[in-house]
Amino acid sequence: MANEHIVKSFDEELEALERMVTQMGGMAEAQLSDCIIALSRRDSALSAVVVTGDAKVDEMNWAVDEAVVRVLALRQPMALDLRAVIGALRIAGDLERIGDYAANVAKRTMALSHLPIVSPVQSIPRMGKLVQHIVKEVLDAYTEKDAAKAERVWERDAEVDEIYTSLFRETLTYMMEDPRNITPCTHAMFMAKNIERIGDHATNIAETVFFIVNGTPLMKRRPKGDESAYSLGATAADYVVSVD
Amino acid sequence: MANEHIVKSFDEELEALERMVTQMGGMAEAQLSDCIIALSRRDSALSAVVVTGDAKVDEMNWAVDEAVVRVLALRQPMALDLRAVIGALRIAGDLERIGDYAANVAKRTMALSHLPIVSPVQSIPRMGKLVQHIVKEVLDAYTEKDAAKAERVWERDAEVDEIYTSLFRETLTYMMEDPRNITPCTHAMFMAKNIERIGDHATNIAETVFFIVNGTPLMKRRPKGDESAYSLGATAADYVVSVD
Repeated sequence: MANEHIVKSFDEELEALERMVTQMGGMAEAQLSDCIIALSRRDSALSAVVVTGDAKVDEMNWAVDEAVVRVLALRQPMALDLRAVIGALRIAGDLERIGDYAANVAKRTMALSHLPIVSPVQSIPRMGKLVQHIVKEVLDAYTEKDAAKAERVWERDAEVDEIYTSLFRETLTYMMEDPRNITPCTHAMFMAKNIERIGDHATNIAETVFFIVNGTPLMKRRPKGDESAYSLGATAADYVVSVD
Repeated sequence: MANEHIVKSFDEELEALERMVTQMGGMAEAQLSDCIIALSRRDSALSAVVVTGDAKVDEMNWAVDEAVVRVLALRQPMALDLRAVIGALRIAGDLERIGDYAANVAKRTMALSHLPIVSPVQSIPRMGKLVQHIVKEVLDAYTEKDAAKAERVWERDAEVDEIYTSLFRETLTYMMEDPRNITPCTHAMFMAKNIERIGDHATNIAETVFFIVNGTPLMKRRPKGDESAYSLGATAADYVVSVD
């Protein structure tokens, strides 16, 4: 194995690194998909699998970090190659966070199994599916080194923010209606927030893919779907708290 | 300037990079401190300064990223030097997130100015001060390349998690008491969560400092102050929703 490693070309090493990131992407996608299925079905057993599975995503992140440091030290890549290596490091970091958020959704699904069913929780899977699609698209953009696709993904973050804002309002209304809804609704709020944050990390990945391919940063200001939140009327029930 | 750059030694370039990160750390610290002062005083003007100031932290992050890529390309550092360069990249990423969370706290302070005062909001600054102290300590550990100090900071994350859990319970109780408390209390929950996340990023920085100095990762499982949350009784008011 050690010899085999030494005779590898830089291209082979870079490909191996990218395969690790792609594999890690698949793991994060599966965690996200499972946490959403578990939430829809109130499935504590599947949630527990997601919670335990997070350690594997974390280990993969360490493995990518180590591979990056090794490639940088042994190969001293330049220009595009260097961006690909640094990009792998960044994307792995975002995937690790996506795994954390999926695990947190799974933990909350487990906590919800003791609590009454509230409608806002049932609205989350739709948002989850959109974010799942965005994560899939951005990982495809990474594999295909497709900057245009990355840019399209990047623009979709505003959609996620809009759904998040509307889900947040709905949840708030349920909380006001009956104090018994407050605990499950608080879980719903944080689940929605976790999924919105997964969308943000997909956006980060889109920026990194764009940077790898073009060597320049994507526009620095993100499109924000929820900026309007600040200008809304401030009645107790309507005042949007989904500030981000 | 261009010539001056070319004749710089690697040590000088690395020092310049570390100074950038330290300066960025100072910026993130100031943002955190200001958002907590603004929260204590219900000061929307100061909050607005924090919200606007976040762009400067973001720009500094791009500047660090660019400097890292340049140093890697021109200097091909090895071993300790390579870890210092990669570490600078990671720490800048964490500081950027700390800036984001501080800005989010500031936005929520502005939203709270239209809402009734609730006691949980007034409990947040204490948690904020603890996290501020932790951020300061970890930045000192970075400047002094002190792995032992970094490890001590890393262990303090459990304290933050404990305060967060207790603040969360308190907030939940207020929400149940009176529906008019729900909106301001929701802000309080997310503010507390933001500050808890700042603590997590300080913990990440501690891990990076340890890695820079020793070349090995700090233990991979973090001490968690809130694991007990899952084993608590599930009465509506007591069920802890601060799952993380």
